[in-house]
This record gives sequence, structure tokens and C-alpha cells, in this order.
Amino acid sequence: MHLLHQTDLPGKRRDRILEAAREAGFTVQTAGPDSFVLFGDGDRSALEALPEVVRIDDEIPPIHLARREEGAETSRVRVGEVEFGTGFTVIAGPCAVEDETRLLGIAHCVKDAGADLLRGGAFKPRTSPYSFRGLGVRGLEMLARAREETGLPVVTEVMDTRDVAIVAEHADMLQIGSRNMQNFSLLVEAGRSGRPVLLKRGMGSTIEEMIGAAEYLLVEGNADVVLCERGIRTFNEELRNTLDLAAIPVLKGRSHLPVIADPSHATGAAEMVPSMALAAAAAGADGVMLEVHDAPGHALSDGPQALSPAGFAGLVGKMRKIAAIAGGTGQLAVGNKEIS
Amino acid sequence: MHLLHQTDLPGKRRDRILEAAREAGFTVQTAGPDSFVLFGDGDRSALEALPEVVRIDDEIPPIHLARREEGAETSRVRVGEVEFGTGFTVIAGPCAVEDETRLLGIAHCVKDAGADLLRGGAFKPRTSPYSFRGLGVRGLEMLARAREETGLPVVTEVMDTRDVAIVAEHADMLQIGSRNMQNFSLLVEAGRSGRPVLLKRGMGSTIEEMIGAAEYLLVEGNADVVLCERGIRTFNEELRNTLDLAAIPVLKGRSHLPVIADPSHATGAAEMVPSMALAAAAAGADGVMLEVHDAPGHALSDGPQALSPAGFAGLVGKMRKIAAIAGGTGQLAVGNKEIS
Amino acid sequence: MHLLHQTDLPGKRRDRILEAAREAGFTVQTAGPDSFVLFGDGDRSALEALPEVVRIDDEIPPIHLARREEGAETSRVRVGEVEFGTGFTVIAGPCAVEDETRLLGIAHCVKDAGADLLRGGAFKPRTSPYSFRGLGVRGLEMLARAREETGLPVVTEVMDTRDVAIVAEHADMLQIGSRNMQNFSLLVEAGRSGRPVLLKRGMGSTIEEMIGAAEYLLVEGNADVVLCERGIRTFNEELRNTLDLAAIPVLKGRSHLPVIADPSHATGAAEMVPSMALAAAAAGADGVMLEVHDAPGHALSDGPQALSPAGFAGLVGKMRKIAAIAGGTGQLAVGNKEIS
Amino acid sequence: MHLLHQTDLPGKRRDRILEAAREAGFTVQTAGPDSFVLFGDGDRSALEALPEVVRIDDEIPPIHLARREEGAETSRVRVGEVEFGTGFTVIAGPCAVEDETRLLGIAHCVKDAGADLLRGGAFKPRTSPYSFRGLGVRGLEMLARAREETGLPVVTEVMDTRDVAIVAEHADMLQIGSRNMQNFSLLVEAGRSGRPVLLKRGMGSTIEEMIGAAEYLLVEGNADVVLCERGIRTFNEELRNTLDLAAIPVLKGRSHLPVIADPSHATGAAEMVPSMALAAAAAGADGVMLEVHDAPGHALSDGPQALSPAGFAGLVGKMRKIAAIAGGTGQLAVGNKEIS
Repeated sequence: MHLLHQTDLPGKRRDRILEAAREAGFTVQTAGPDSFVLFGDGDRSALEALPEVVRIDDEIPPIHLARREEGAETSRVRVGEVEFGTGFTVIAGPCAVEDETRLLGIAHCVKDAGADLLRGGAFKPRTSPYSFRGLGVRGLEMLARAREETGLPVVTEVMDTRDVAIVAEHADMLQIGSRNMQNFSLLVEAGRSGRPVLLKRGMGSTIEEMIGAAEYLLVEGNADVVLCERGIRTFNEELRNTLDLAAIPVLKGRSHLPVIADPSHATGAAEMVPSMALAAAAAGADGVMLEVHDAPGHALSDGPQALSPAGFAGLVGKMRKIAAIAGGTGQLAVGNKEIS
Repeated sequence: MHLLHQTDLPGKRRDRILEAAREAGFTVQTAGPDSFVLFGDGDRSALEALPEVVRIDDEIPPIHLARREEGAETSRVRVGEVEFGTGFTVIAGPCAVEDETRLLGIAHCVKDAGADLLRGGAFKPRTSPYSFRGLGVRGLEMLARAREETGLPVVTEVMDTRDVAIVAEHADMLQIGSRNMQNFSLLVEAGRSGRPVLLKRGMGSTIEEMIGAAEYLLVEGNADVVLCERGIRTFNEELRNTLDLAAIPVLKGRSHLPVIADPSHATGAAEMVPSMALAAAAAGADGVMLEVHDAPGHALSDGPQALSPAGFAGLVGKMRKIAAIAGGTGQLAVGNKEIS
Repeated sequence: MHLLHQTDLPGKRRDRILEAAREAGFTVQTAGPDSFVLFGDGDRSALEALPEVVRIDDEIPPIHLARREEGAETSRVRVGEVEFGTGFTVIAGPCAVEDETRLLGIAHCVKDAGADLLRGGAFKPRTSPYSFRGLGVRGLEMLARAREETGLPVVTEVMDTRDVAIVAEHADMLQIGSRNMQNFSLLVEAGRSGRPVLLKRGMGSTIEEMIGAAEYLLVEGNADVVLCERGIRTFNEELRNTLDLAAIPVLKGRSHLPVIADPSHATGAAEMVPSMALAAAAAGADGVMLEVHDAPGHALSDGPQALSPAGFAGLVGKMRKIAAIAGGTGQLAVGNKEIS
Repeated sequence: MHLLHQTDLPGKRRDRILEAAREAGFTVQTAGPDSFVLFGDGDRSALEALPEVVRIDDEIPPIHLARREEGAETSRVRVGEVEFGTGFTVIAGPCAVEDETRLLGIAHCVKDAGADLLRGGAFKPRTSPYSFRGLGVRGLEMLARAREETGLPVVTEVMDTRDVAIVAEHADMLQIGSRNMQNFSLLVEAGRSGRPVLLKRGMGSTIEEMIGAAEYLLVEGNADVVLCERGIRTFNEELRNTLDLAAIPVLKGRSHLPVIADPSHATGAAEMVPSMALAAAAAGADGVMLEVHDAPGHALSDGPQALSPAGFAGLVGKMRKIAAIAGGTGQLAVGNKEIS
């Protein structure tokens, strides 16, 4: 295994060196803007002779792009006018996009209540194939109209490499869902999409696996990544998942990327969402994602976990007040040092 | 299986009826101050003839003493001058009692910083028999002196039915540790001790098992029980355990007993304690238990998780501010309704 | 939500009715060869007027295709000359395809030792983007040559909807890996591929989620599905995952699909593989998948879990003997009744 | 922290040195027959002057008595005529002792079917205080009579330090249950009881914690310890717990103590017990513990998991055949090397 460093190259010459490495008998993988990992017993000297090749090392890099360097600040991720990583950012909206009137209604509600971005699923992962899997492209179009009307940037899930382009065209931020956190093909495409990405933790995934998944996005040149803790699978049977709030300071200690929480999916129970949202703010999260629905009892997906618009409105101010008090605590507590 | 209800009886006549039930061929278990559960094929009519017997039902009760009834308030548990269940109660102190001078020093520190009770282990559960298992009775005596000097009530763990009396003599509140949450013999003795009990959740225990354990204390006549979430075993390998903060609103919804959190044992890492303590306050906890040590690097037990006195002092005010903001949220959110 | 039943139709007229349902204002999802689920407030009467429409019900089906009906036998899944669901089927081979000579060597070894199918990864999911992600199409070609040489049918993982066609062209059986168990787009494509599918359990997935994932394959018309238990995430830190062998009788009780186990990935430790492979045979599995490498220390992926060819050879006979003794036990034990 | 090694001493002189260490200002804990761990800043030179003191080291030992040394055989643990650690040992009987006639009936059944020991609970840990907690001493007497009648040695649970003596008087082997695996006071008493001990894994306990618990027994001088895997808490909701069969070879690799499995409590479902019992035999277990009841529907405790006498009889031969085939596998596989 080798790591090939090349001079800073325009796309075309980059392709040529990639081709040369393949011809020399290597399997080649991108390791960053000016480097490739080479596997196999290829002809190394042929490559070293090329003018574009700076040097070839006998090692492959550890995960590093997603890590927080000693003393580094939290990265800021801009989505439209919104900036994650400074202040407390609130994403809100329905689980699934169901019809345009309803979506616009909810979008206005959450905007008035202080939300920064609108969420809504057009492609929905469902345990049973007979459950509502979303409106697809029609849903994307409705989301785009909701942005036009409210000015709220839109984040929505993409589940298929073949849909990345169309989702990126309509949405301001791509969501990679829990079930796809280690769908590496999808990560590569999202990394090349030119859109910021919200990466949700897999419900059976470790912190290090999540940082590895973020690295897939970063290595493709996409620096705009926000991490989202959304509950893990444990023996607890009371609520849907167990919100792992300690993951917030752990992630922030290890990675420079902003970290938010999703108490709606974690608990699956609207009456639990307010306390968990406040707890996330107190734990040092850079924001939350919350499901809001004007008629939770009639939602086509995950109704029982959606806040009413009034419930959401009452919560926003409290979260921001608590985030302000907790303020430096997380930073202070974890500093930049990795937890061993 | 039957449930025998008796008239309100003084101890002696209560013993007589118990004896009569055994003579009638039943296995008898206490079910409350005026009731017994009877197992086996005994002679029921002989018992029914007794004047003390109100009636005998053909059922056994579900867990009920520890449950919150519709509309009921959180119970208040008084320990010395302190009252759990109103405001935000802070327990602090070293993991283990090591020597008197050190204990007194820490006790004064935490008192000055705003702690309500002093913690410190005289009997310590340790994975290896070669680790420090505590000073035993000498440790209890030091705790008693620390109370005299500072006025702080003292809570300390008891691990053996044979030690309940001596611990109850020296301490203001008995702690049942995680490893003993389902040590039912110990629960029975603690239930009869006349001292308030702090019951910690087992790291592999469900919410319902915890409520069952509390019921063991209550059925013996001890109404002064405080529950403590302290982290559960999950696949997470970053920190010692996973603090299950959603357990706080779930427990408060199901039980009228006050609920606190122990972020020190849950995380095992001092730099994680502040954010998790604030998160517990935001999640609606009635308090926290925190480990504080003046020289964490030299602690005989769990040094890496102890806050410095200064770190603790900076945290107390923030927790109380956040608890005040979160205030009604937990209450509002879970009301008295059981989460299905 | 409605369920539309249509008459048995050739592809073209099926497309027409699908189109009609969309025009009538519904969101349409496949529910089987002659049925669709309709979501939304469309014009139902317009559809009912069509001659192809048998009837429209006001309900959507539960998961049913993957379930074992009362008294039903285990389904047989044919891959080349091999039949899963009768006898004990052994899949063996390297974790990743690395080079052709090595692959052919291992393929001959495992064939001689009694393997029924050859495994080998051409597309590899890796936690870090800098780890070896496989040879891709070149790897598929090597697998195809190994089949030609040995006669062993080949199973290999597919990770991207865009690769399903090319993998189906080269391999006899598609593998959906743990990280993609709920990559529903991929399941749909695999369900339409015309190839048998080996579906591995997600490491954080429940039994019911796994059956739901199988249903996605079956509803697309692919009846040739084999389930694979490969270990779950638990608090155990000794081995990579915890092999959940009870999942084998539970799955066999609930589903008619054959069930195998993968002790190599579950344990991640070659010295644990033999006892877990024998235990899987005793637990009623229809087979196992094992990693075998001729030089585990030099493997580009997961070397520490690979058996040596000699170790594998010694194991095959024992597994088959034990499977024969266990024989009816699983069947007898779980019958067709669902475990409540 | 120091480790004091003394000359081999009779009890009285051992007490004297213990006293001397306390007077010198140390907290003293037993570390084996001729050694103590000393904590605190005592007067070390005073002790070194004593003739009984061989030397004082500046370290405390790691867990070592329960570990398997390189090349060491599995220890044999004798209970009456039965020997664990050679062949496949079968413990069977009802969950709880309910009445004498029933107990004797089941005891004869399991003996005839090939059981080696009789189990039955006289003291029962129950989640609710209103469930049947066992017959206590009357149950012990019935077990003793069952041994007299059948010749089967008896194993039964002890839950309270104060009951160790009476249980040791009636039973041949003491069981420490899952909920008490880290009840260290109870372990110390059981270690001093003179009876072999069956130590069950806590449902939230790691392998290393289990070995630590065994060390508590061994350090008190009790070498007759058998370990029992009985299922752990995981996110699986299908069965009561997840039987961790890989724990068997892991435990056998790390410890010289015999290891058995309890599929009845692990699954909580009789129809799952046969396949898990066979799997345990295949995984290299030294035996199993199974619940058998003649009328499972009427059992006062855990009826749904009990095998019928006929079901049990059909299983015994199969388990022994499979254990014989698996034979060396576990040994071969794990050797004496610790899994890293």
C-alpha cells in the first residue's frame, strides 16, 4: 500500500495520473485533492518518473480530515443564509412531505416560531415496503416551493446514488439517513454533489464509524458536513431508541464538524421530545432537528413523534436560552483533546 | 395465589396473623402494611374466620406503590434539612472515603460551592478483589464527622444485609448501588432501616425492573426513595456507560419518586461530566450526584471521573439556572400519563 | 390508503394501470405481481371503472410474503447446482478478491474441502476511505473465472444500485451486506435482478426489520432469498460482534426462507470461528459462510478472521455431522408458530 | 498500595499478622492464602520486621487465580460423584421448588433421562415483590430429600450472606444468580462456605467482570467454581435475553474453570431451548442447566421456559453426541491463549 502525492493539478491532468497508476498495475482510490492510495504490486518506479508525482510514501493515511486538530475551532457550515457551528441552529418540519398545502402551512409555522431550516422527506426509508415511501420528485418540488415562499433553506434525505443530482438540484442540504450512514457509494456521490450534507448516525454505529463516514464526504472535497446524533439501539424498550447525548461532547472533542441532535427519531414519542431537545442544548449541541406536524394523528409517517406547532413554538426560546448558558461548557470540558 | 387484607394492626397481632397463615399451609409474603400475598394450597377458610382478616382476594397486586397516580405530584423525600423533589438537589463528594483530613477538606469545598448532601463510599464494590474496597466502619465514622463539621447530610452505599444497621446508624441516607439494584434481600433490609434510600439503576436493568426494585423498598414501609439514573451498558465503547437521559422523563412519568442522575459514573470521564450534568438538569432531573476530589490523580477509586473543586463550583449555578428554565417542561411533557 | 388488486397482466398493461393510478392522483407503490398500494386522495372511482381492476380495498397489507405460513416447508433456493434449504450448505472463500492467482488457489482449496459456493468481495464496504475498497469489475471477472475453473457458483456483495446489473452478470448470487440491509433502493434493484440474493442482517437490526428487508426483495418478484445472521452490536467488547444464534430458530419459525450464519464476521477472530460454526449447525442453520485465506497475515481485508485452508477442511465434516444430529430439532422446536 | 507476602501460616498466626497490619495503619484485604493487599500510608517497616513477613511489594496483583495459564488444563470441579470439566454435565429441574411431591416426581424424571445434578430454587429473585419468592428453608429441605431419594447432587441459589450457611448445609453446590454476580459480600461468603459454586453471568456483565467475580471466590480459598453463560441484555426484543455462545470459548480461553450454559433463562421460551442447548454443546460448553417441569402451565415461576420431561429426555443424548463431535474443537480453537 502506498500513498501517492501529486502536484496541484487541474481535473484533466489529475485524470491522466490516475490512469497512469492503473496502467502501472495499481488499484487506485482517492485520498484527497492531491493524493491517491495505491493497492497492489504495481510498477512504482514508472509512476515516480512522472513530473506530476511529488512522492510516493509506503503508508496510507489514518482518518484525519474529519478530526479536530489541537486548538482548532468548530467549522462553520453555511446553508443559504444559515450557518451551523455558531449559535444554536433549529431544523424543523414534517417527517414526510405529504401535500403542498400542508407543507406550506407547516413551513410558515416553524419559520414564525424561529426555525432556521425546513426539513421534510420526499424519499422515505420504511421498514415495510407497503408503508408510504414518499412522493419522490414531486415532494422535492414542493420543498423547493416552500423555500421560495418562506426563505427557509431546505434539507431532505437522499437514499440512492442515482437521485443525488436531482435532490441536490432542489434542496439546499442533503441528508444521509441512519440506515445509509455506511452506504459508502452514496457518501461518495454526496461528497461530490456540491451541497452541504447532514450525516445522521447509524442506530448501531460507533462514534469512530461515524467519523469514518464523514471522512468519505470530506475526502471527495465536500467540507460542509454536519453530524447528527439520533439515538442508538440498546436494551431499553421504553422508547424507540436511546438518545446518546454524551456522543455530542465526544464528537465535538474528536471532530471539528458541527453536531446536532434529533430527539424526534430518537424517542419516537412527542411527549419526550421537549426534555430531550433541552438536554441536547445543555449538552453542547450546535442545534437540533425536530419533527413538527399540524395534525400528528393524520401523518403518513411517524405521527406519534411530531410536535404540534404550538409545542414547537414554546420550545425554541428555551433551547436557545439553555444553549447560551451551557455555552462554553462543552468546549471547555472537552477542549480539543481526544477522549482516550 | 391470594391477597389477604387485614385490619390495621399493631406489630404483635400482625405477627399472629402471619403465623396463622403459615399454619394454614401458605407461603406468606408481605404486600404492604395491612396485606399479605399467600402462595400454595392452604386452608383459606381457617383464615377467613379470624377477626383480623378483612377479606381474601384471588389475585395478587401489580406493582403500584411506586407508580405515579393520575394527577399526583412528585413525592418529597426529606433527608435532614434537604428535600428531594422540590428544586434541584446536588449531592457531591469523593468516590471513596480515603482519610479524614481529605474528606473534611472536600466536604467543606462542596458545601461552599452549594452542594446539599455529601457522598463518599465506605464500602466499595470493585471488579477485582485486589482493588481498594473501602475503609468500612472507619469510613462511616469519618462521614459522620464530616456531617458534624459541615452540616451536610451524608449518603453512602451499603452492600450487605448485615451492614444495614451500622450504615443506617452513621449515614442519613443509604445508597443501593447499581450492582445491587436487584439484590432483593438488601432491598428488604433497606426498606426496614428507617433511612431514606438512594436507589441506583442497574447498568443492565430496564425502567420497569427499577420500579420493581423501588417497590421492594416501599412495600416494607419505606416511602423515602430517590431514583438515580447512572448509565447503561450499550455497544458504545467511548465512555464507560451510556447515560440514558430519556430515562428521567420516563421514570418521572411512571413514578412519583424523585429522580436524579449520576454523570460521573455514567461517563467515567471528568471532562464529560459538566455537559452531562447540565443535560440532566435540562431533562428534568430533580438533582445530580457528582464526584469531586481535590487530587483526582491520587484517588484510590475512579479518579479520572472526579471533578476538581473549582470545576464543581463553576457548575452548580449553571445547573440550577438550567433546571429553572426547563422547569415545567418535563412535567408538562410527561404529565402523569404512562408512556406506552 | 388503498390496496388495488388487478387481473394478471402482461408488463405493458400493468404499466398502463400504474399510469392511470398516478393520473387519478395517487402515489403508487408495488405490493406484488397483481397489486399496488395507493396513497393520497385520488379519484378512486375512475380506477374502479377500469376492466383490469379487480377491486380496491381500504387497507394495506402487512408483511406477508416472507412469513412462514402454518405448516409450510422451508423454501429451497437454487443457485447453480446448489440448493439452500435442504442439507447444510457451505459458502467459503476470501474476504476480498485480491489477485487472480490467489483467488483460484483458495477456490480450489475450499472446493476440495467440500464447499458448495465460493465467496469473495469485489466491492468492499470499509470504515475508512483509505482502506482497500476492492478491485471492482476486475474482481468480478476473477470471480467468474474461478467459477469456470472450479464449477463453484459465486456469491459477491453489491453496494450500489448502479452496479446491480454488472454484478448480476458475473455472479450467481448477489450479497446485500449488513450496512446495506435497509438500503431500500438497493433491495428493490436486487429484487429485480433475476439473481438469488443473500441478505445479511444489519448489526443493529431487529429480526422484524430483517424480515421487512426480505419482503422488499420478494415483493419485486424475487423469491430466491437466503437470510444470514452475522452478529449484532452489544456491550460485549471481547469479539467484534455478538453472534445471535437464537436468531436462527426465531427466523426459521417466522419465515420460510433458508437461514445461514457468518461466524467469521461475527467474531472477527479465526480461533473463535470453528466453535461458532459448529454451534450454528447445531442451532438449525441451513448453512454457513466462512472466510478462508491461504495467508491470513497478508490479507488486504479482515485477515485475522480467516481460517486457513487446513482449518476449514477439518471443520466441514464436523459441521455436517452435527447438522444431521440436530436435524429435526429446530423444526420440531419452533414448528411454524410465530414466537410471541 | 502494597502486597504483603507471608510465610505459610496456621489461622491464628495469620490473624495476628492481619492485626499487626491494621495497627501499622493499613487497610487490609485478603489477596490469597499467604498474602494481603495493604492500602493507605501505614508504617511499612514495622511489618517488615515481623518474622512471618516474607516481603512487601509495591504493587497489587492483577486477577490471576481464575486465569488459565499457558498450557493448563480445564479444572475439574467435583460435586458429589459428579465432575464438571470432563464430559458434558447436565443440570436439570424446576425453576422453583413448589411442593415436595412435584419436586420428587421431576427429580426422578430428570435422573432417568440422564441428568447429573438436580436444580430447584428455594430462594427466588423476582422483579416484583408480589411474585412467588420461594419456599425458603422448607424448599431446601425438600431438595435435600430429593437428593436422598435420587442420589442426584443438588444445586440451588443463595441470595443473602446470612443464608449461606443454611444453604450450604442442605445443598451440594451454591448458585450465585445473575442479579448477584457482583454482590461481592455474597461472593466472599460463598467463597468461605466450603461448597462448590455455580456462578452465573450478570445480564449486563462483561467477560472480564465475570472473571473478576470468580476471583472473589477463589481468593477466599474456594477452588470449586463453575461459570455459567445465561444470556445478556441486547436490543433484541424477540426473546428474553441473547444467549452469548461465543462467551463459552472466550471464557474457556481465558479461564481454567469449567463453563456451562443456561438456555432456559437466556431464551425464556421452551421452544427455543433445544436448539440453544445443542448449540451450547457444539460451542464447547462443559454442560448445560435446563429447566424441566411436569406441568409448565402451572409453574409458579417461569413456566413458559420449562421443557417437558419428554422433551428433556429426547435432548440429552443429542447434546452428548454433539459435545463428543465438537470435542477438541473449542480446545484446539482457543488453546490457552488469551483473546486480545
